[in-house]
Amino acid sequence: MLGLMNQQILLASRPRGVATLENFRLVETSVPTPAAGQVLVRHRWLSIDPYMRGRMSAAKSYAAPQPLDAVMIGQTAGVVVESRCSRWKVGDEVVGMGGWQQYAVVDGEDRQGLRKVDTSRVPLSAFLGAVGMPGVTAWYGLNKIIEVKPGQTVLVGAAAGAVGSVVGQLARVRGARAVGIAGGPEKCAWVTETLGFEACIDHRDHADVRSLAAALKLACPDGIDGNFENVGGKVLDAALTVMNPFGRVALCGMIAGYEGEAIPLTLARLILQSRLRIEGFIVTEHPEVWPEALRELADLIVDGRLRYRESIAVGLAQAPTALLGMLTGANFGKQLVSLE
Amino acid sequence: MLGLMNQQILLASRPRGVATLENFRLVETSVPTPAAGQVLVRHRWLSIDPYMRGRMSAAKSYAAPQPLDAVMIGQTAGVVVESRCSRWKVGDEVVGMGGWQQYAVVDGEDRQGLRKVDTSRVPLSAFLGAVGMPGVTAWYGLNKIIEVKPGQTVLVGAAAGAVGSVVGQLARVRGARAVGIAGGPEKCAWVTETLGFEACIDHRDHADVRSLAAALKLACPDGIDGNFENVGGKVLDAALTVMNPFGRVALCGMIAGYEGEAIPLTLARLILQSRLRIEGFIVTEHPEVWPEALRELADLIVDGRLRYRESIAVGLAQAPTALLGMLTGANFGKQLVSLE
Repeated sequence: MLGLMNQQILLASRPRGVATLENFRLVETSVPTPAAGQVLVRHRWLSIDPYMRGRMSAAKSYAAPQPLDAVMIGQTAGVVVESRCSRWKVGDEVVGMGGWQQYAVVDGEDRQGLRKVDTSRVPLSAFLGAVGMPGVTAWYGLNKIIEVKPGQTVLVGAAAGAVGSVVGQLARVRGARAVGIAGGPEKCAWVTETLGFEACIDHRDHADVRSLAAALKLACPDGIDGNFENVGGKVLDAALTVMNPFGRVALCGMIAGYEGEAIPLTLARLILQSRLRIEGFIVTEHPEVWPEALRELADLIVDGRLRYRESIAVGLAQAPTALLGMLTGANFGKQLVSLE
Repeated sequence: MLGLMNQQILLASRPRGVATLENFRLVETSVPTPAAGQVLVRHRWLSIDPYMRGRMSAAKSYAAPQPLDAVMIGQTAGVVVESRCSRWKVGDEVVGMGGWQQYAVVDGEDRQGLRKVDTSRVPLSAFLGAVGMPGVTAWYGLNKIIEVKPGQTVLVGAAAGAVGSVVGQLARVRGARAVGIAGGPEKCAWVTETLGFEACIDHRDHADVRSLAAALKLACPDGIDGNFENVGGKVLDAALTVMNPFGRVALCGMIAGYEGEAIPLTLARLILQSRLRIEGFIVTEHPEVWPEALRELADLIVDGRLRYRESIAVGLAQAPTALLGMLTGANFGKQLVSLE
């Protein structure tokens, strides 16, 4: 694509405390030319996800930190615009890990690289959300860790987000009762009225663990059997106080601590008293469930039993703002950046 | 047993903070006469266990509090001295939940009541320790929660105690490496030299999480795969920092918080980062494993592959002192009260 420019966003510096726009830098380079065996993908959508904040830090975690002065990591959805690999043809719609840039050159033979998607049933952007990593995260935690049963109550943090919204709807499909926690009356109304959760608690109404725990007790008269936890800190403490014996906690995130804050679990003794199981997981480590999960999630969308919502920022330059906003709950549903 | 007296220890008051001898009261009553279907058991041994401290409090837990002015709850080992039930005869050696008293009348038909034991292979007191609830606790946590595999490293808190000493030896039987934590050089030496743990860390040498974690890293060069946790608080925090991805924590006690102290888990984010599973359990809720576990534990003792040690207080009146001492680590091995 001679002569075309490729805008990219690099990680310019690591945050000290709260991440800011100054941690990023927009640059322009030439669009690279694919070598033999490679394809050139033009990105239509960038996925914005909480894990990105963790990668910005140098602290030890399950994944290596995002390198400085390199293109920000991230899932992407786009179209093959040039192919020098027989597996791919121009016009193929694909998802991959293209990062925060307009174009990416990808090894066409790498089975971990691009995945072709069928947009005849669900739109391309959904493969970054309800039929993508967030959806499979919900599916795995609910089915493989919580092992939800009909009649149980499942608590879902960040219930209006990309993961939480799927967790609650899947729980309902399994015959369970979903109760959400979200920030603000608009999100809570969407969670109950559109997604069919039994109740949704506005965490802004509850400044401390005691108040939130009391609200959870009211919303969960039979207690909580499964807790899909993606917030941590006080929210997890409050949930533990309402959990039934032998309850399960699927721990997929601790967004409360993503800016480096300490997030102690104050009521750890409840793990013993209520004989709870708490398990942390990273969905990319369980590739064996992806085909089954993606199939069910797509079917549920087509059937109208799985609804989703997107917050769309327009233009690559908006990606940092979109990420920082998501970390404070500014998004409503899946946060995306549109590149067209 | 007309004319004989039965000494009993009652819970006189609930502790405010640290439990004291004033929370107990010694009384004397007549030895009761068994009615039809009942048997009279003379106790030879009282078992002293950490869970008793929890029962002394009125706080909500997995079990109902010990009632005030009633005989303190507890496992007992003794001999049937009078029987009005065809299932039992005078001289039968039994374990049961007779409580802190010299004699108890028991319903002979209650399958949850007495259990006859065979002292031809192991002595009666062992049925309160290595071949009793502590031993099965070790067996369950190691096999059903940690699911230990050959070559793994298992960390064992309170390693010189009734439960911990069995955990480490069972781990070795399974081909794993056991590393202990205990209080004082004498206990640590017994754990490594007599029980065959690879290493034992004296927690008295380590005032904070950082120091203990550094010692654990040295003692566990390949990381920790399974943590049998019965202490909680800082010990658990330190262990989490050294745990390998997908490690398991079997949580059977939090003795650090038994006097009512808060025991926050400061490094909860590590559950996610290392994709750990933490599970609390109460061994009496898993009766299905008891026969298999007790059989293996007795066989290992007979084979000389499972060693144990007892701290014996003499006389019923010493039971409160024995319990309070155990809560601060004064015991060495299984804490018992001898009634003969």
